[in-house]
Amino acid sequence: MRKKPETLHRRETARSRLFRVETVGLRFANGIEVEYERLTSSTSGAVIVAPLLDDDTVLLIREYAAGTERYELALPKGRVEPGEDVLAAANREIKEEVGYGARELQAIRQLSVAPGYMQHLTHLVLARDLYPERLPGDEPEPIEVVPWRLSHLDELMAQEECSEARSIAALYIIRDRLQKEAT
Amino acid sequence: MRKKPETLHRRETARSRLFRVETVGLRFANGIEVEYERLTSSTSGAVIVAPLLDDDTVLLIREYAAGTERYELALPKGRVEPGEDVLAAANREIKEEVGYGARELQAIRQLSVAPGYMQHLTHLVLARDLYPERLPGDEPEPIEVVPWRLSHLDELMAQEECSEARSIAALYIIRDRLQKEAT
Repeated sequence: MRKKPETLHRRETARSRLFRVETVGLRFANGIEVEYERLTSSTSGAVIVAPLLDDDTVLLIREYAAGTERYELALPKGRVEPGEDVLAAANREIKEEVGYGARELQAIRQLSVAPGYMQHLTHLVLARDLYPERLPGDEPEPIEVVPWRLSHLDELMAQEECSEARSIAALYIIRDRLQKEAT
Repeated sequence: MRKKPETLHRRETARSRLFRVETVGLRFANGIEVEYERLTSSTSGAVIVAPLLDDDTVLLIREYAAGTERYELALPKGRVEPGEDVLAAANREIKEEVGYGARELQAIRQLSVAPGYMQHLTHLVLARDLYPERLPGDEPEPIEVVPWRLSHLDELMAQEECSEARSIAALYIIRDRLQKEAT
Protein backbone atom coordinates (compact mmCIF):
# COMPACT_ATOMS: atom_id res chain seq x y z
CA MET A 1 0.00 0.00 0.00
CA ARG A 2 1.28 3.46 -0.89
CA LYS A 3 2.11 6.04 1.74
CA LYS A 4 -0.67 8.63 2.03
CA PRO A 5 0.25 12.23 1.26
CA GLU A 6 0.95 14.54 4.17
CA THR A 7 -1.57 17.31 4.91
CA LEU A 8 0.17 20.70 4.85
CA HIS A 9 -2.84 22.92 5.54
CA ARG A 10 -6.61 22.87 5.51
CA ARG A 11 -9.03 25.82 5.45
CA GLU A 12 -12.71 26.50 4.75
CA THR A 13 -13.06 28.40 1.44
CA ALA A 14 -16.83 28.50 0.94
CA ARG A 15 -19.94 27.67 2.91
CA SER A 16 -23.68 27.56 2.31
CA ARG A 17 -26.58 26.19 4.37
CA LEU A 18 -25.92 22.64 3.10
CA PHE A 19 -22.39 22.62 1.73
CA ARG A 20 -18.93 23.29 3.13
CA VAL A 21 -15.91 23.58 0.81
CA GLU A 22 -12.44 22.99 2.23
CA THR A 23 -9.11 23.64 0.52
CA VAL A 24 -6.42 21.13 1.45
CA GLY A 25 -2.71 21.32 0.70
CA LEU A 26 -1.05 17.91 0.30
CA ARG A 27 2.55 16.78 -0.11
CA PHE A 28 2.82 13.41 -1.88
CA ALA A 29 5.52 10.82 -1.04
CA ASN A 30 7.51 11.99 -4.10
CA GLY A 31 7.65 15.54 -2.70
CA ILE A 32 5.10 17.08 -5.10
CA GLU A 33 2.72 19.53 -3.44
CA VAL A 34 -0.87 20.03 -4.63
CA GLU A 35 -3.94 21.96 -3.44
CA TYR A 36 -7.36 20.30 -3.70
CA GLU A 37 -10.88 21.50 -3.01
CA ARG A 38 -13.21 19.04 -1.32
CA LEU A 39 -16.77 19.04 0.00
CA THR A 40 -16.88 17.97 3.62
CA SER A 41 -19.82 16.07 5.14
CA SER A 42 -21.55 15.70 8.43
CA THR A 43 -19.79 12.91 10.32
CA SER A 44 -22.86 10.67 10.55
CA GLY A 45 -23.03 9.81 6.83
CA ALA A 46 -25.99 8.51 4.88
CA VAL A 47 -27.88 5.30 4.15
CA ILE A 48 -29.24 3.77 0.97
CA VAL A 49 -31.71 0.95 1.54
CA ALA A 50 -32.73 -2.02 -0.63
CA PRO A 51 -36.15 -3.00 0.83
CA LEU A 52 -37.14 -6.48 -0.39
CA LEU A 53 -40.86 -7.25 -0.57
CA ASP A 54 -39.97 -10.82 -1.55
CA ASP A 55 -36.82 -12.60 -2.82
CA ASP A 56 -37.12 -10.98 -6.27
CA THR A 57 -38.95 -7.69 -5.62
CA VAL A 58 -37.27 -4.50 -4.48
CA LEU A 59 -39.14 -1.26 -3.71
CA LEU A 60 -37.93 1.78 -5.65
CA ILE A 61 -39.19 5.34 -5.27
CA ARG A 62 -39.89 7.98 -7.88
CA GLU A 63 -39.12 11.47 -6.60
CA TYR A 64 -38.28 14.89 -8.01
CA ALA A 65 -34.51 15.52 -7.90
CA ALA A 66 -33.54 19.18 -7.67
CA GLY A 67 -29.96 18.44 -8.81
CA THR A 68 -30.74 16.86 -12.18
CA GLU A 69 -34.10 18.72 -12.39
CA ARG A 70 -36.18 15.66 -13.29
CA TYR A 71 -38.01 12.79 -11.61
CA GLU A 72 -35.61 9.99 -10.67
CA LEU A 73 -36.33 6.31 -9.96
CA ALA A 74 -33.99 5.10 -7.21
CA LEU A 75 -33.67 3.27 -3.91
CA PRO A 76 -34.77 5.13 -0.75
CA LYS A 77 -31.98 6.98 1.02
CA GLY A 78 -31.30 9.69 3.53
CA ARG A 79 -29.01 11.10 6.15
CA VAL A 80 -28.10 9.30 9.37
CA GLU A 81 -29.14 11.63 12.21
CA PRO A 82 -26.52 12.52 14.85
CA GLY A 83 -26.35 9.72 17.39
CA GLU A 84 -28.53 7.44 15.25
CA ASP A 85 -27.46 3.90 14.44
CA VAL A 86 -27.02 3.07 10.71
CA LEU A 87 -29.60 0.27 10.77
CA ALA A 88 -32.08 2.43 12.73
CA ALA A 89 -31.62 5.20 10.14
CA ALA A 90 -32.28 2.69 7.32
CA ASN A 91 -35.47 1.48 9.01
CA ARG A 92 -36.68 5.05 9.61
CA GLU A 93 -36.02 6.03 5.99
CA ILE A 94 -38.05 3.14 4.53
CA LYS A 95 -40.90 3.86 6.97
CA GLU A 96 -40.91 7.47 5.74
CA GLU A 97 -40.36 6.82 2.04
CA VAL A 98 -41.94 3.46 1.19
CA GLY A 99 -44.33 2.84 4.11
CA TYR A 100 -42.68 -0.32 5.40
CA GLY A 101 -40.45 -1.22 8.32
CA ALA A 102 -38.10 -4.25 8.27
CA ARG A 103 -37.57 -7.00 10.85
CA GLU A 104 -34.23 -7.90 9.26
CA LEU A 105 -31.66 -5.21 8.48
CA GLN A 106 -28.13 -5.94 7.29
CA ALA A 107 -25.32 -3.47 6.54
CA ILE A 108 -23.68 -4.65 3.30
CA ARG A 109 -20.90 -2.14 2.52
CA GLN A 110 -20.08 1.54 2.10
CA LEU A 111 -20.36 3.43 -1.18
CA SER A 112 -18.59 6.69 -1.98
CA VAL A 113 -20.16 9.25 -4.28
CA ALA A 114 -17.21 11.18 -5.71
CA PRO A 115 -14.17 10.18 -3.63
CA GLY A 116 -11.91 12.62 -5.47
CA TYR A 117 -13.68 15.68 -4.07
CA MET A 118 -16.43 14.56 -1.66
CA GLN A 119 -15.96 13.15 1.83
CA HIS A 120 -19.49 11.69 1.66
CA LEU A 121 -19.96 7.94 2.39
CA THR A 122 -23.26 6.03 2.15
CA HIS A 123 -23.99 2.77 3.95
CA LEU A 124 -25.86 0.21 1.85
CA VAL A 125 -28.43 -1.65 3.98
CA LEU A 126 -30.45 -4.69 2.88
CA ALA A 127 -33.93 -4.68 4.47
CA ARG A 128 -35.98 -7.89 4.57
CA ASP A 129 -39.05 -9.29 6.30
CA LEU A 130 -41.04 -6.07 5.76
CA TYR A 131 -44.21 -5.02 7.57
CA PRO A 132 -46.45 -2.03 6.81
CA GLU A 133 -45.58 1.03 8.91
CA ARG A 134 -45.58 4.64 7.83
CA LEU A 135 -43.73 7.55 9.43
CA PRO A 136 -44.29 11.12 8.21
CA GLY A 137 -41.47 12.35 5.94
CA ASP A 138 -40.52 15.86 4.88
CA GLU A 139 -41.25 15.45 1.17
CA PRO A 140 -43.20 18.21 -0.61
CA GLU A 141 -45.42 15.69 -2.45
CA PRO A 142 -46.30 12.00 -1.91
CA ILE A 143 -43.48 9.68 -3.02
CA GLU A 144 -44.46 7.12 -5.64
CA VAL A 145 -43.37 3.58 -4.70
CA VAL A 146 -42.43 1.36 -7.66
CA PRO A 147 -41.87 -2.38 -7.07
CA TRP A 148 -39.25 -3.78 -9.46
CA ARG A 149 -38.12 -7.37 -10.04
CA LEU A 150 -34.38 -7.92 -9.58
CA SER A 151 -34.58 -10.54 -12.36
CA HIS A 152 -35.54 -7.64 -14.66
CA LEU A 153 -32.65 -5.27 -13.90
CA ASP A 154 -31.80 -5.03 -17.63
CA GLU A 155 -35.15 -3.35 -18.33
CA LEU A 156 -34.53 -0.93 -15.46
CA MET A 157 -31.11 -0.02 -16.88
CA ALA A 158 -32.86 0.90 -20.15
CA GLN A 159 -34.83 3.62 -18.28
CA GLU A 160 -33.16 7.00 -18.36
CA GLU A 161 -34.92 8.03 -15.13
CA CYS A 162 -32.96 5.38 -13.18
CA SER A 163 -29.56 7.08 -13.33
CA GLU A 164 -28.28 7.31 -9.78
CA ALA A 165 -24.99 5.41 -9.48
CA ARG A 166 -25.42 4.38 -5.82
CA SER A 167 -28.83 2.83 -6.54
CA ILE A 168 -27.58 0.99 -9.63
CA ALA A 169 -24.50 -0.30 -7.78
CA ALA A 170 -26.68 -1.38 -4.83
CA LEU A 171 -29.21 -3.21 -7.00
CA TYR A 172 -26.53 -5.28 -8.73
CA ILE A 173 -24.71 -6.02 -5.47
CA ILE A 174 -27.97 -7.18 -3.85
CA ARG A 175 -29.07 -9.21 -6.88
CA ASP A 176 -25.73 -11.08 -7.03
CA ARG A 177 -25.82 -11.65 -3.28
CA LEU A 178 -29.33 -13.11 -3.34
CA GLN A 179 -28.43 -15.32 -6.32
CA LYS A 180 -25.48 -16.65 -4.32
CA GLU A 181 -27.65 -17.23 -1.22
CA ALA A 182 -30.12 -19.20 -3.36
CA THR A 183 -27.52 -21.62 -4.71
CA MET B 1 -45.40 11.07 -15.78
CA ARG B 2 -45.79 13.69 -13.06
CA LYS B 3 -45.74 17.38 -13.84
CA LYS B 4 -42.36 18.92 -12.91
CA PRO B 5 -42.40 21.64 -10.24
CA GLU B 6 -42.28 25.24 -11.42
CA THR B 7 -39.08 27.21 -10.75
CA LEU B 8 -39.92 30.37 -8.75
CA HIS B 9 -36.40 31.77 -8.36
CA ARG B 10 -32.76 30.76 -8.65
CA ARG B 11 -29.69 32.50 -7.20
CA GLU B 12 -26.02 31.74 -6.53
CA THR B 13 -25.45 31.41 -2.77
CA ALA B 14 -21.82 30.27 -2.57
CA ARG B 15 -18.89 29.85 -4.90
CA SER B 16 -15.35 28.49 -4.74
CA ARG B 17 -12.75 27.74 -7.42
CA LEU B 18 -14.39 24.37 -8.20
CA PHE B 19 -17.91 24.52 -6.79
CA ARG B 20 -20.96 26.71 -7.35
CA VAL B 21 -23.97 26.46 -5.02
CA GLU B 22 -27.35 27.63 -6.28
CA THR B 23 -30.54 28.09 -4.23
CA VAL B 24 -33.69 27.24 -6.18
CA GLY B 25 -37.28 27.94 -5.16
CA LEU B 26 -39.77 25.37 -6.50
CA ARG B 27 -43.58 25.16 -6.50
CA PHE B 28 -44.81 21.57 -6.80
CA ALA B 29 -48.00 20.60 -8.69
CA ASN B 30 -49.86 20.44 -5.34
CA GLY B 31 -49.00 24.09 -4.60
CA ILE B 32 -46.33 23.38 -1.95
CA GLU B 33 -43.28 25.65 -2.22
CA VAL B 34 -39.78 24.50 -1.21
CA GLU B 35 -36.25 25.91 -1.40
CA TYR B 36 -33.39 23.56 -2.34
CA GLU B 37 -29.64 24.01 -2.54
CA ARG B 38 -27.89 22.34 -5.46
CA LEU B 39 -24.36 22.14 -6.83
CA THR B 40 -24.26 23.19 -10.47
CA SER B 41 -21.79 21.73 -12.98
CA SER B 42 -19.96 22.75 -16.08
CA THR B 43 -22.22 21.96 -19.03
CA SER B 44 -19.83 19.50 -20.65
CA GLY B 45 -20.16 16.78 -18.00
CA ALA B 46 -17.78 13.93 -17.26
CA VAL B 47 -16.84 10.48 -18.53
CA ILE B 48 -16.14 7.20 -16.76
CA VAL B 49 -14.45 4.59 -18.94
CA ALA B 50 -14.36 0.78 -18.79
CA PRO B 51 -11.21 -0.10 -20.80
CA LEU B 52 -11.24 -3.81 -21.72
CA LEU B 53 -7.87 -5.47 -22.25
CA ASP B 54 -9.71 -8.64 -23.28
CA ASP B 55 -13.29 -9.95 -22.92
CA ASP B 56 -12.85 -10.57 -19.20
CA THR B 57 -10.20 -8.04 -18.11
CA VAL B 58 -10.92 -4.43 -17.22
CA LEU B 59 -8.23 -1.90 -16.27
CA LEU B 60 -8.78 -0.19 -12.91
CA ILE B 61 -6.63 2.57 -11.43
CA ARG B 62 -5.48 3.12 -7.86
CA GLU B 63 -5.22 6.81 -7.02
CA TYR B 64 -5.29 9.03 -3.94
CA ALA B 65 -8.75 10.55 -3.41
CA ALA B 66 -8.73 13.87 -1.57
CA GLY B 67 -12.46 13.57 -0.73
CA THR B 68 -12.37 10.30 1.20
CA GLU B 69 -8.68 10.82 2.11
CA ARG B 70 -7.52 7.36 1.08
CA TYR B 71 -6.34 5.48 -2.03
CA GLU B 72 -9.30 4.33 -4.13
CA LEU B 73 -9.49 1.57 -6.74
CA ALA B 74 -11.85 2.66 -9.53
CA LEU B 75 -12.36 3.05 -13.27
CA PRO B 76 -10.59 5.96 -15.00
CA LYS B 77 -12.69 9.11 -15.29
CA GLY B 78 -12.46 12.81 -15.91
CA ARG B 79 -14.12 15.94 -17.19
CA VAL B 80 -15.20 16.45 -20.78
CA GLU B 81 -13.39 19.58 -22.00
CA PRO B 82 -15.49 22.38 -23.53
CA GLY B 83 -16.19 21.52 -27.19
CA GLU B 84 -14.81 17.98 -26.76
CA ASP B 85 -16.83 14.96 -27.90
CA VAL B 86 -17.73 12.41 -25.17
CA LEU B 87 -15.94 9.52 -26.91
CA ALA B 88 -12.86 11.68 -27.59
CA ALA B 89 -12.79 12.63 -23.90
CA ALA B 90 -13.01 8.96 -22.93
CA ASN B 91 -10.11 8.06 -25.23
CA ARG B 92 -8.00 10.95 -23.92
CA GLU B 93 -8.66 9.97 -20.30
CA ILE B 94 -7.53 6.37 -20.77
CA LYS B 95 -4.43 7.51 -22.66
CA GLU B 96 -3.59 9.77 -19.69
CA GLU B 97 -4.56 7.40 -16.88
CA VAL B 98 -3.96 3.82 -18.09
CA GLY B 99 -1.59 4.30 -21.05
CA TYR B 100 -3.88 2.85 -23.71
CA GLY B 101 -6.05 4.26 -26.48
CA ALA B 102 -9.07 2.39 -27.89
CA ARG B 103 -10.10 1.72 -31.49
CA GLU B 104 -13.67 0.96 -30.37
CA LEU B 105 -15.54 3.37 -28.08
CA GLN B 106 -19.22 3.04 -27.21
CA ALA B 107 -21.34 5.34 -25.04
CA ILE B 108 -23.47 3.09 -22.82
CA ARG B 109 -25.57 5.39 -20.60
CA GLN B 110 -25.45 8.34 -18.23
CA LEU B 111 -24.96 8.02 -14.47
CA SER B 112 -25.89 10.67 -11.92
CA VAL B 113 -23.91 11.10 -8.72
CA ALA B 114 -26.36 12.66 -6.27
CA PRO B 115 -29.39 13.74 -8.32
CA GLY B 116 -31.09 15.29 -5.28
CA TYR B 117 -28.50 18.05 -4.97
CA MET B 118 -25.95 17.74 -7.80
CA GLN B 119 -26.50 18.57 -11.47
CA HIS B 120 -23.48 16.42 -12.36
CA LEU B 121 -23.92 13.67 -15.02
CA THR B 122 -21.24 11.18 -16.09
CA HIS B 123 -21.24 9.33 -19.43
CA LEU B 124 -20.25 5.66 -19.16
CA VAL B 125 -18.09 4.65 -22.14
CA LEU B 126 -16.99 1.10 -23.00
CA ALA B 127 -13.50 1.06 -24.60
CA ARG B 128 -12.33 -1.98 -26.56
CA ASP B 129 -9.59 -2.96 -29.01
CA LEU B 130 -6.91 -1.17 -26.98
CA TYR B 131 -3.44 -0.14 -28.18
CA PRO B 132 -0.57 1.29 -26.11
CA GLU B 133 -0.46 5.09 -26.16
CA ARG B 134 0.36 7.41 -23.30
CA LEU B 135 -0.57 11.08 -22.95
CA PRO B 136 0.79 13.16 -20.06
CA GLY B 137 -1.79 13.62 -17.28
CA ASP B 138 -1.90 16.14 -14.44
CA GLU B 139 -1.59 13.62 -11.58
CA PRO B 140 0.87 14.41 -8.75
CA GLU B 141 2.22 10.84 -8.73
CA PRO B 142 2.17 7.93 -11.23
CA ILE B 143 -1.21 6.18 -11.32
CA GLU B 144 -1.12 2.47 -10.56
CA VAL B 145 -3.00 0.40 -13.17
CA VAL B 146 -4.70 -2.72 -11.79
CA PRO B 147 -6.14 -5.29 -14.25
CA TRP B 148 -9.21 -7.03 -12.80
CA ARG B 149 -11.26 -9.93 -14.15
CA LEU B 150 -14.96 -9.20 -14.54
CA SER B 151 -15.65 -12.83 -13.64
CA HIS B 152 -14.16 -11.98 -10.22
CA LEU B 153 -16.29 -8.94 -9.36
CA ASP B 154 -17.34 -10.52 -6.05
CA GLU B 155 -13.74 -10.40 -4.81
CA LEU B 156 -13.49 -6.74 -5.86
CA MET B 157 -16.66 -5.92 -3.92
CA ALA B 158 -14.99 -7.37 -0.83
CA GLN B 159 -12.26 -4.69 -1.10
CA GLU B 160 -13.00 -1.56 0.94
CA GLU B 161 -10.80 0.55 -1.39
CA CYS B 162 -13.22 -0.05 -4.28
CA SER B 163 -16.07 2.11 -2.99
CA GLU B 164 -16.98 4.53 -5.75
CA ALA B 165 -20.62 3.99 -6.78
CA ARG B 166 -20.19 5.00 -10.45
CA SER B 167 -17.34 2.50 -10.92
CA ILE B 168 -19.26 -0.31 -9.21
CA ALA B 169 -22.42 0.43 -11.23
CA ALA B 170 -20.37 0.59 -14.46
CA LEU B 171 -18.55 -2.69 -13.79
CA TYR B 172 -21.80 -4.61 -13.25
CA ILE B 173 -23.50 -3.00 -16.27
CA ILE B 174 -20.52 -3.89 -18.49
CA ARG B 175 -20.21 -7.42 -17.13
CA ASP B 176 -23.92 -8.15 -17.74
CA ARG B 177 -23.70 -6.62 -21.21
CA LEU B 178 -20.68 -8.73 -22.21
CA GLN B 179 -22.34 -11.88 -20.83
CA LYS B 180 -25.38 -11.11 -23.00
CA GLU B 181 -23.19 -10.47 -26.06
CA ALA B 182 -21.47 -13.83 -25.52
CA THR B 183 -24.70 -15.84 -25.52
